[in-house]
Amino acid sequence: MKEKVTLIVFSGEMDKALAAFNIALGAASMGMEVTIFFTFWGLNVIKKNQGPLKSRGVMRKMLNFMNRGGSKRLPLSRFHMFGLGKWMMGKLMRNAKFPSLDEMIALAHGAGVKFVACTTTMGMMGVSKEAFIPEVDSFAGVATYLEKANEGKINLFV
Amino acid sequence: MKEKVTLIVFSGEMDKALAAFNIALGAASMGMEVTIFFTFWGLNVIKKNQGPLKSRGVMRKMLNFMNRGGSKRLPLSRFHMFGLGKWMMGKLMRNAKFPSLDEMIALAHGAGVKFVACTTTMGMMGVSKEAFIPEVDSFAGVATYLEKANEGKINLFV
Amino acid sequence: MKEKVTLIVFSGEMDKALAAFNIALGAASMGMEVTIFFTFWGLNVIKKNQGPLKSRGVMRKMLNFMNRGGSKRLPLSRFHMFGLGKWMMGKLMRNAKFPSLDEMIALAHGAGVKFVACTTTMGMMGVSKEAFIPEVDSFAGVATYLEKANEGKINLFV
Repeated sequence: MKEKVTLIVFSGEMDKALAAFNIALGAASMGMEVTIFFTFWGLNVIKKNQGPLKSRGVMRKMLNFMNRGGSKRLPLSRFHMFGLGKWMMGKLMRNAKFPSLDEMIALAHGAGVKFVACTTTMGMMGVSKEAFIPEVDSFAGVATYLEKANEGKINLFV
Repeated sequence: MKEKVTLIVFSGEMDKALAAFNIALGAASMGMEVTIFFTFWGLNVIKKNQGPLKSRGVMRKMLNFMNRGGSKRLPLSRFHMFGLGKWMMGKLMRNAKFPSLDEMIALAHGAGVKFVACTTTMGMMGVSKEAFIPEVDSFAGVATYLEKANEGKINLFV
Repeated sequence: MKEKVTLIVFSGEMDKALAAFNIALGAASMGMEVTIFFTFWGLNVIKKNQGPLKSRGVMRKMLNFMNRGGSKRLPLSRFHMFGLGKWMMGKLMRNAKFPSLDEMIALAHGAGVKFVACTTTMGMMGVSKEAFIPEVDSFAGVATYLEKANEGKINLFV
């Protein structure tokens, strides 16, 4: 029986997403079963970087314009400095031969990490399934999260 | 034997509180026993929306004026924009027939979710028991939290 | 067999660090085995307050200048107000006879809490072992974290 790790990614910030994916990749490489639930601002991590914005209603359009998302658009939680801090962090990561968030998403998907998008926040924010990258395995609510989380010992809210 | 879920709500932000209550309500509806410990800024979530501010000392008065709290006063962690972002979020939630934080607090209390206020932060910030909504079940410190958390598998810090 | 508590301190903010150390101290005093993994901005919590900044490369120098760290330099996550809010919080803590973060670090170390610094972020940010306080017990990556976390029920991401 495999050990299970379940992560909630609530935050839409690059540094927190990197931490979550680092844990997910580590756990997957140790043979654990990993599921990541993306909710609220965390949905931004798994939104497509390209493509048109489709939302119904003026307010949703405004929200989804500001809150565009996509792994390449996430701000840092500190020292973002209108993008300068983020650019520096990206450069430091490349210098240290550290994979980018994009590469970590691909690696995690390849290692069998499951990506679940939270349908409750999708409904609230007016985000449709087409907004997400193809690596997303399923769309579900809190009940699915709780069942999964209850099977493992490592449950983190990032 | 019931499964147990224990949440620490450290953050005083509306979006994080919504996430915590969504998990709490989901777990309660699945028959799990849920306890939420409100600490630090999280105490704001369960403060009364009405009533006078009573604190001893100038500095505590200042802190409790800025950090007034109450479920209707919580900022968003992102895009708060002096209240505009929060107002938009409230409207999107109503459009999506999503309960407000106030309604979720009532629903959670009705579903048997236990609310515990952290006495350590209350002492530090000079907040008295009268500052809280009547749904708060008890006042306790970290030892109570740890005993509860140790009985379950789902333990999150929000 | 001792119960185990494993905390990830990702945040470099004073209030979150206080919450983590409060939990760690409580758990240690109840006879639990506590390990704290400091990663990303959380490395700042266990950096020395004194001493020169040594980093290779201009960008790392800039990052480590801005992101200097040390338990006395951590900002508050809310109401920092260029240091005023933090000064007020420090004063309230002393008035309430609450130990400072510095004192909590010493108390935790004395109570057997293990401090682990994340080597992955150290490499990325160009922080060397000499930057840390002597209370740090070891330097390790995510695999060590996961092994530890898997032995206990209380695992939090702060």
